[in-house]
Amino acid sequence: MAIFRLLIILTVAYTSLSQSIIQISTEKQTLLASDGISDHPKIPNDLYCESWRFTVETNDAGIWAQVPARCEGFVKDYMTGDKYQSDSEAVADNSLAYAKTVELHGDGKDAWIFDVDETLLSNIPYYVRHGFGSEIFDEVSFDNWVDMAEAPAIPASLRLYEELLELGFTIILLTGRTEFQRNATARNLEYAGYSNWERLILRHNSDHGKSATIYKSERRKQLEDEGYKIHGNSGDQWSDLTGFAVAKRSFKLPNPMYVIA
Amino acid sequence: MAIFRLLIILTVAYTSLSQSIIQISTEKQTLLASDGISDHPKIPNDLYCESWRFTVETNDAGIWAQVPARCEGFVKDYMTGDKYQSDSEAVADNSLAYAKTVELHGDGKDAWIFDVDETLLSNIPYYVRHGFGSEIFDEVSFDNWVDMAEAPAIPASLRLYEELLELGFTIILLTGRTEFQRNATARNLEYAGYSNWERLILRHNSDHGKSATIYKSERRKQLEDEGYKIHGNSGDQWSDLTGFAVAKRSFKLPNPMYVIA
Repeated sequence: MAIFRLLIILTVAYTSLSQSIIQISTEKQTLLASDGISDHPKIPNDLYCESWRFTVETNDAGIWAQVPARCEGFVKDYMTGDKYQSDSEAVADNSLAYAKTVELHGDGKDAWIFDVDETLLSNIPYYVRHGFGSEIFDEVSFDNWVDMAEAPAIPASLRLYEELLELGFTIILLTGRTEFQRNATARNLEYAGYSNWERLILRHNSDHGKSATIYKSERRKQLEDEGYKIHGNSGDQWSDLTGFAVAKRSFKLPNPMYVIA
Repeated sequence: MAIFRLLIILTVAYTSLSQSIIQISTEKQTLLASDGISDHPKIPNDLYCESWRFTVETNDAGIWAQVPARCEGFVKDYMTGDKYQSDSEAVADNSLAYAKTVELHGDGKDAWIFDVDETLLSNIPYYVRHGFGSEIFDEVSFDNWVDMAEAPAIPASLRLYEELLELGFTIILLTGRTEFQRNATARNLEYAGYSNWERLILRHNSDHGKSATIYKSERRKQLEDEGYKIHGNSGDQWSDLTGFAVAKRSFKLPNPMYVIA
């Protein structure tokens, strides 16, 4: 019954918090509405930001504009500390545990799909200079960064990638980057230690305006039509993993910096 | 470049950890394999358990047997402290923000589906006496607890439930509990403060042996065939939310204590 009383006390506490009047500008209100969770000012920052991250990683938050201003330091600490690394390793462990249970046909059509940004490659060196998702996304500066082709591998993903190749999976890379970025992307992947992918699929001109979910689902469907069996799919965005022609198992990597619809 | 060096250092650190030999019994090894992530003994408990929780809540872990022994205290602290409460509130905020954007038809067929256990009702008073998911699930003692009909509401869910009714949604309850538990379940829901649901759907005899995903998808499909438009769906299990006839938006509530396939 102690727990029951605790729940009642917390209910009252939260109810009074949610009814407190928050003085913010209209612009800020719009942003908060799209972010979905209220900016309860009395809740400690870490607690608030951990819960915000929960809703982002479970897809409860849906499409959100940018990291809440009060969580900028939290996201920076998460991305550059040991938590992001540890979460990535845990996801790679899950992926590999599943991969080892898959019965491969051995016809070269046993596919595992990887997204590129924040899945195989880490753009932390870019985001460290751009507020870790707390700034509005700047396409020009990000494209310049892509052209540099210096993004490091996410260590857990490189380990998984190499073990999947060894197990006999055919690796397909499916990214929202465009055909214009093919050379820089391939060069960067090799620089980071990746090799022996079967195919690198990028957005064509004809994909312009399509949501990532639709574009990636269509490409997975094409792969299935070619006879590929998509056993696994790794991505940091829910739009990498959902839609149609989804993989038998999908693995969500952490990314509290941005969302792609 | 400092970040790049950091990543390399962490890679080396993790690689050496993942190659360390873990001395465990065969029985324990099987358990770890089903849990998916390796039991790196050198990683601090909180870091390990936070990452384990990440993989559970994102569905990366898939089906797992029970809370890892080393995370029993972590899960207890999470469930009884302010984090579970805060995460539940954030999910309710997301759900309500979405609900307010839905254009209702006003024909009584604008449905929102709720699961029951760990979604509307909290079984913490039961799990506080049963290791918070670190013990093998005991159906007999849990059924006795259900018959007592004393589970409290999750405060955030009660708030959401009432606001959805006010907005004009028709509430449908879809639970994995069986028809034999109908009276106890309805009595408990009322005791916890819930009322005015349109329908309480429980497992029939004919659902015996079906996975939760299939059973719940079939019932959602029946609702659609009756003309219901399923705008939202709230559940603590991925098997509440995935499969077919899925809702327009699904909301995953936290639950690191157990998984239902």
